[in-house]
Amino acid sequence: MNSDRREPNYLLTEKQVADKSEIARRFYEARTRLNANVDKADNILVKRFSNLDHSTYLESTIPAKYKELMGMVASACLRCDDCISYHIIQSYRLGVTRVEQEEALNVALIVGGSIVVPHLRRAYELLSELYG
Amino acid sequence: MNSDRREPNYLLTEKQVADKSEIARRFYEARTRLNANVDKADNILVKRFSNLDHSTYLESTIPAKYKELMGMVASACLRCDDCISYHIIQSYRLGVTRVEQEEALNVALIVGGSIVVPHLRRAYELLSELYG
Amino acid sequence: MNSDRREPNYLLTEKQVADKSEIARRFYEARTRLNANVDKADNILVKRFSNLDHSTYLESTIPAKYKELMGMVASACLRCDDCISYHIIQSYRLGVTRVEQEEALNVALIVGGSIVVPHLRRAYELLSELYG
Amino acid sequence: MNSDRREPNYLLTEKQVADKSEIARRFYEARTRLNANVDKADNILVKRFSNLDHSTYLESTIPAKYKELMGMVASACLRCDDCISYHIIQSYRLGVTRVEQEEALNVALIVGGSIVVPHLRRAYELLSELYG
Amino acid sequence: MNSDRREPNYLLTEKQVADKSEIARRFYEARTRLNANVDKADNILVKRFSNLDHSTYLESTIPAKYKELMGMVASACLRCDDCISYHIIQSYRLGVTRVEQEEALNVALIVGGSIVVPHLRRAYELLSELYG
Amino acid sequence: MNSDRREPNYLLTEKQVADKSEIARRFYEARTRLNANVDKADNILVKRFSNLDHSTYLESTIPAKYKELMGMVASACLRCDDCISYHIIQSYRLGVTRVEQEEALNVALIVGGSIVVPHLRRAYELLSELYG
Repeated sequence: MNSDRREPNYLLTEKQVADKSEIARRFYEARTRLNANVDKADNILVKRFSNLDHSTYLESTIPAKYKELMGMVASACLRCDDCISYHIIQSYRLGVTRVEQEEALNVALIVGGSIVVPHLRRAYELLSELYG
Repeated sequence: MNSDRREPNYLLTEKQVADKSEIARRFYEARTRLNANVDKADNILVKRFSNLDHSTYLESTIPAKYKELMGMVASACLRCDDCISYHIIQSYRLGVTRVEQEEALNVALIVGGSIVVPHLRRAYELLSELYG
Repeated sequence: MNSDRREPNYLLTEKQVADKSEIARRFYEARTRLNANVDKADNILVKRFSNLDHSTYLESTIPAKYKELMGMVASACLRCDDCISYHIIQSYRLGVTRVEQEEALNVALIVGGSIVVPHLRRAYELLSELYG
Repeated sequence: MNSDRREPNYLLTEKQVADKSEIARRFYEARTRLNANVDKADNILVKRFSNLDHSTYLESTIPAKYKELMGMVASACLRCDDCISYHIIQSYRLGVTRVEQEEALNVALIVGGSIVVPHLRRAYELLSELYG
Repeated sequence: MNSDRREPNYLLTEKQVADKSEIARRFYEARTRLNANVDKADNILVKRFSNLDHSTYLESTIPAKYKELMGMVASACLRCDDCISYHIIQSYRLGVTRVEQEEALNVALIVGGSIVVPHLRRAYELLSELYG
Repeated sequence: MNSDRREPNYLLTEKQVADKSEIARRFYEARTRLNANVDKADNILVKRFSNLDHSTYLESTIPAKYKELMGMVASACLRCDDCISYHIIQSYRLGVTRVEQEEALNVALIVGGSIVVPHLRRAYELLSELYG
């Protein structure tokens, strides 16, 4: 079964987030620099994967903000700091509150266990910068 | 930061789900049988863990149904069929539609990759029994 | 950078493999039954993922048989029996010898450690049926 | 740095354990059947890996029983039921008490999170058969 | 079944370890800085998780030093450098010898495979500073 | 079943690779520094593991270059940057082309999902340095 899809309505631009958080700024900077190599290679399967990845998080039956939080919980359980930062920032841009971010991180903590704790600590640092 | 918590309002009892789906029925049956041993052991740390696990998914700032879907996405990425079934059933009891279940499974598929596919297939079997 | 892609030239049909190996026969049977539900749902993102998955293993600069073995090694390290069986069967259909299968399994064993051993045992059972 | 190594002193034979627990009996039976294929293949790297695996758990500066429990905790966190059963049985043969088994499982539960719970349930079933 | 629990008797304070090892000093410093954000948030579920985590490693039927080594083996198999460092330091404070640390790391290496090697190398660096 | 084994014929020395790529140079430097501690400890089980690891990737029925790519795919799916870099460099030294490296990375991406993407980005940075 399928659902209509459309670009979500971001409340903040990437630049506005980067101006607010040093961690977010460094995240965007590293991603831009590294993606330059990937884009230059122009690998067709990588591009198809990226398009599919993009489609997955579009606004649909499930609001985009909850899909970003789902991606964040999965990233925390699989323990990828880059991915956690990305989804926290995306959620933030979609209006997710700090309490909601912490609630989602609690799901990741109980599912994934104490091995998630170092990532949780770093996630809270980003939350502090974003929500101040 | 914290959020008020309360028991979610289930639209269906476990028995009603078990009557509708053979997979759900077997899931409950196995869980009941195995939990008997765990309960009998009365291990205090296991009990504290279970209580914390229960608290995590309570209705709060994030609706319980989305927390169950977050747990499902994490379970699919960590590839535990029992956990996937549990969260699909819980979501179903909270009124999540089939389209929403599939949207959440799509997040798990893109984050976790093709290694998730065998679990996705089994999840769709459960979805077919539940949503008919 | 990209590589030309084309369907690989299978030396054996799925049916021929199923006639030779009971494990392969049950694998195909379960996959067919479960895929019926997935196909019926006609989820567009699942279909795009499946197409991309298919494209990845096509004959290209790297012979298809080595890509199937790569998928098998990854599956063994991530410990998914269904995925291991699938890639062993695909490699077999592409003319991979038993010695090559074991060599690839050795890579999985050293990278993934003793947690791979139970999967290795089940893989050897399938190898015994296929290569007799 | 190295430690003297010697075979541990088992208090019970495999047969005695199999007579006491149906789960242990089936575990041994499946392992014997599957290992026949592996042994027949006589793969030199698999044999060297098995020898190294065996050496790792020998009685040394750390008593063998605690090394088996370490293997059990790692197996539970990596979520392999076969490996968990193996190490529980080995620990049992070395005189580990039920309370010690549960204490070790508690470490696995807190490190690995709720995704470990289904394995914990099955582990408790084996504990019940062994310790009655 | 339960076991009496009490705080373990540390032979060294955190400060004494930090004075001996630069890696330990930086580990404590980063943890202190990051925990400040977590503590400030005062999230009730995170606090309950931390308390449960603390209880798990208390002196009990299994000596605390072996539980720390179990946590270390699990952390190495799940490949978290922060967690490995933490448990190596805790074990060190409880009187674990270098030979015992290496024996436990050997269990992690055989269970987890060569993917553990980069973490093993970094662990040996910490061991050299502590026992050097 | 076994295969003859012999050292592969490297087209480039480690020094030649380090002169070409800053990432490779730093990788070798860190490995050399960290291995000094490991070698000094002279742990017999670590040495046996290293020997077995070395034997696994020798030229045999499967050409060494494809075994290195298998190791790379497994490393990417298990998400270890050090291991990915190592196998990309080894493959490069054995004459693997950039297109082949990308094809292998595509297998890792589809099997492992978007959680692999940050590692893919860093891998492409190394590819750019090596293949210029």
